[in-house]
Amino acid sequence: MGVSFWLITLAMIGAAALFFLERRRLPTNWQAHVTVAGVVALISAINYHFLTGIWVSAGNVSTVYRVVDWQLTVPLKVISYHLVLTAMAAVSAALFCRLLVSSAIMIAAAYLGAANYLSPTLGFLVSPAGGPYILGELYLGEASKINANSGKEWAQSAFIAIRLIVTVGWAIYPLGYFMEHLGGGVDSGSINLIYNLADFLNKIAFGLVIYRAAVRDPAPERRG
Amino acid sequence: MGVSFWLITLAMIGAAALFFLERRRLPTNWQAHVTVAGVVALISAINYHFLTGIWVSAGNVSTVYRVVDWQLTVPLKVISYHLVLTAMAAVSAALFCRLLVSSAIMIAAAYLGAANYLSPTLGFLVSPAGGPYILGELYLGEASKINANSGKEWAQSAFIAIRLIVTVGWAIYPLGYFMEHLGGGVDSGSINLIYNLADFLNKIAFGLVIYRAAVRDPAPERRG
Amino acid sequence: MGVSFWLITLAMIGAAALFFLERRRLPTNWQAHVTVAGVVALISAINYHFLTGIWVSAGNVSTVYRVVDWQLTVPLKVISYHLVLTAMAAVSAALFCRLLVSSAIMIAAAYLGAANYLSPTLGFLVSPAGGPYILGELYLGEASKINANSGKEWAQSAFIAIRLIVTVGWAIYPLGYFMEHLGGGVDSGSINLIYNLADFLNKIAFGLVIYRAAVRDPAPERRG
Amino acid sequence: MGVSFWLITLAMIGAAALFFLERRRLPTNWQAHVTVAGVVALISAINYHFLTGIWVSAGNVSTVYRVVDWQLTVPLKVISYHLVLTAMAAVSAALFCRLLVSSAIMIAAAYLGAANYLSPTLGFLVSPAGGPYILGELYLGEASKINANSGKEWAQSAFIAIRLIVTVGWAIYPLGYFMEHLGGGVDSGSINLIYNLADFLNKIAFGLVIYRAAVRDPAPERRG
Amino acid sequence: MGVSFWLITLAMIGAAALFFLERRRLPTNWQAHVTVAGVVALISAINYHFLTGIWVSAGNVSTVYRVVDWQLTVPLKVISYHLVLTAMAAVSAALFCRLLVSSAIMIAAAYLGAANYLSPTLGFLVSPAGGPYILGELYLGEASKINANSGKEWAQSAFIAIRLIVTVGWAIYPLGYFMEHLGGGVDSGSINLIYNLADFLNKIAFGLVIYRAAVRDPAPERRG
Repeated sequence: MGVSFWLITLAMIGAAALFFLERRRLPTNWQAHVTVAGVVALISAINYHFLTGIWVSAGNVSTVYRVVDWQLTVPLKVISYHLVLTAMAAVSAALFCRLLVSSAIMIAAAYLGAANYLSPTLGFLVSPAGGPYILGELYLGEASKINANSGKEWAQSAFIAIRLIVTVGWAIYPLGYFMEHLGGGVDSGSINLIYNLADFLNKIAFGLVIYRAAVRDPAPERRG
Repeated sequence: MGVSFWLITLAMIGAAALFFLERRRLPTNWQAHVTVAGVVALISAINYHFLTGIWVSAGNVSTVYRVVDWQLTVPLKVISYHLVLTAMAAVSAALFCRLLVSSAIMIAAAYLGAANYLSPTLGFLVSPAGGPYILGELYLGEASKINANSGKEWAQSAFIAIRLIVTVGWAIYPLGYFMEHLGGGVDSGSINLIYNLADFLNKIAFGLVIYRAAVRDPAPERRG
Repeated sequence: MGVSFWLITLAMIGAAALFFLERRRLPTNWQAHVTVAGVVALISAINYHFLTGIWVSAGNVSTVYRVVDWQLTVPLKVISYHLVLTAMAAVSAALFCRLLVSSAIMIAAAYLGAANYLSPTLGFLVSPAGGPYILGELYLGEASKINANSGKEWAQSAFIAIRLIVTVGWAIYPLGYFMEHLGGGVDSGSINLIYNLADFLNKIAFGLVIYRAAVRDPAPERRG
Repeated sequence: MGVSFWLITLAMIGAAALFFLERRRLPTNWQAHVTVAGVVALISAINYHFLTGIWVSAGNVSTVYRVVDWQLTVPLKVISYHLVLTAMAAVSAALFCRLLVSSAIMIAAAYLGAANYLSPTLGFLVSPAGGPYILGELYLGEASKINANSGKEWAQSAFIAIRLIVTVGWAIYPLGYFMEHLGGGVDSGSINLIYNLADFLNKIAFGLVIYRAAVRDPAPERRG
Repeated sequence: MGVSFWLITLAMIGAAALFFLERRRLPTNWQAHVTVAGVVALISAINYHFLTGIWVSAGNVSTVYRVVDWQLTVPLKVISYHLVLTAMAAVSAALFCRLLVSSAIMIAAAYLGAANYLSPTLGFLVSPAGGPYILGELYLGEASKINANSGKEWAQSAFIAIRLIVTVGWAIYPLGYFMEHLGGGVDSGSINLIYNLADFLNKIAFGLVIYRAAVRDPAPERRG
């Protein structure tokens, strides 16, 4: 299991290097998106390097250390998601606020539950409450309509890929939370493996989708 | 509480990477501003990495180690603040000198008080004396008038955001100083948490406001 | 033998620096290729630095730690290989999928055999099964025809060099697997030396061939 | 006192980052100057990081370790100084040689005295002998005349600032040498503080003056 | 003597930073040369950092660890040397092969002698055999004629400087080999000092000559 921490550390370093180097040749209006994806990967790389050391010495990794990473990277990913939508169509600032607030609730409840400031059962009920809201926006709400009206093929496939990653990837966090705090006999190795997979999907795959959309965008201001 | 040191270390690294990468696509006259914001974040990242280690091994962090960081970053932030004003209108060199001197008084008094070269009570009275002066400049003085005369919407919102950060953020330092040296029963964890929040606000939020102003500036010499 | 780990660590760092710096002056359509080659070298450099430490302290390096690297770098190399083919002619997406799947089988079987989840003999039979398929594609299949139809001299010599590296380099892995798990009296030093040579050939030589092809491509959009 | 080592380490890192990032937007004929200033700061940052560790563990720092830094940075600074003069007017190669030789004498005598290869008193007499010569060049000699004939206001203020830094900064070294080897009761903390101040002035302030001159030079080939 | 390892580590870092930063503003056909010089300095910097640690803990540095570096950097330097010749005139590929083979013989014999796979005396006789051949090429052979026919003043002075460095610098290796393995009473400190000087000359001075030639080349495609 410790190998999976080292694997993700290396993957995050590689992803950060890829995004930081390739952003230079992308269209100007996409560069900030890929920079944010690279910063997410860089922060995760450093935190996973730290988590690897903790795992090797202690044989377990408290979710509190993961929340440190999430407190920085989840807001960045919401910003990233909003930037992708604005690259496709005009998006209301209210949508951005709603996404940010629902993410903040998720992280705060997870942290309070992990650090035992809150009853685990209550944390479980509150934490994923933001999830269905975000999914509702993606499949039914304002964000969904924006996508349908956008005629660009590459933008639609990027939107669908992101929606899939958000659905699958963020569904893993409540699953891990349930296994960790409520489900009785689950070993900590499995829980960490699940969280590692979720981080891999939410950070690296998410960033690659944005990068690919940027490469396919036939923007005229693409640099040589 | 140790987690908050690690959190800020990661946040500073991310901020430094963001500013260093994005400065390339900004208008030329804004690049130096964002470089300075990135250097502030870089220096803080390294110092917070060092502070995290001290906290883990000793369970406390002397304010003397924080002053090392402030001696470098506060002058850089005053320079940064002055550069933002000059990007909006012609500013007198005297205003710059006044801002720099009042900052120097704040840091010097804080250092002398923290290192016990000065009576804590005297340090408390002298240290924040520079604060009201800076706020006076921002709300009533030359800097304030410059802002009112500037017709650019993005510049005014940046000015207001910076003024708010300076008001709230720099008001935290005297509060921490009071709690640390004069207020009796405050544990060192709370004091460090307060200083960490102040640094987060004064360095990362401050830098992000400058970055955002640079992105919104419709300068003709913006690079592709 | 420990010296060979340190040698490859240094070589990978040098290769990563070379690819990251030189990619800037290459034609735009080749930059992503060289970035990927550099990311492969960077990930390997960090993993070999880690392997060097394990070798010095333990006198042996488990193949499990090597598979961590391969799980990231082999898919990147298949992507890289596909990108080179697309730079020469239109390639079907199905070819890419076939190459990726056969590589995934190789790595998965090697990992399961090394970690003792699978009988070593079964692993040996399954693992290199992907190899002949890839070679078939290179010498007889769709990829081979693409090359023959391409009239560019530099592209053909790159294709032949890559085909040679893939043939020789990837043939070393089953050889090492056989020696490690089935061949009786082979010391671990020789096995690691073989794997080190294979990694040197497959990552650095492979990257250099791509880099050289990019330099020789007389693309009009070459940057100054 | 140990804090002053850490402070200068951070300042050198910040200066190196500033010079390396900003050099890109400077006029072409100034880029090499700022690169050299950044390399000086980088070498000093790494050496001061090393000195900080020695100070923490041993409570003292031998001047021999400082001379390692000076052997690299003083010649670079003389080159830098010569480059600034050539940016203003045609300068004879002989002037450059005279400056380099007199600097070499200073460092060699300081090293031989610090490492006890030479009588401290003799070292004290020989070491600063190069200093008056350099000052003579600056105030009375060929370099001085070049400056007077140059009509550029920004160039003259840069020349005056550099002359001041050289006069004050390099005068500190003989002072430290005298205190260390000849003056009786001076504690090593004060001597190191003096050397730290001298390095701060000679490397960071010197570099900032060159950077500022480069920013103010209205060269036509300034990059966007 | 340990100081000389630290000195060269810092010098190599500075040289790598200089070459990597300055290559951007050089003519396109010179950028690869300076990149290679920077990669040589980077690899040496990391290896010397490692050697410094070995020296501090063991008081001696086996030549085997140096050969690790030479196995990578000597071929790079031969490539570099060949690239400089091609920048001056058309050079036959055979010349390149002859240079590479004679270098390979030098390194291989030195390694086999140092690791006791070969009789030291035989190694001494074989190892420098490549040297006279390279010098013959430089002073009398094809390379020499190329230089004489080239009318460019800056190219000729670069050729002469490189020839001098190769003559003096590579002559030091057989001298060190003789002292280490055959000459009786030489202490290891002196031998390491000699090798350090040779590396300084062959890597940093060699790179600086190439850099200077690149700066002086009045190529039309020089970037702004």
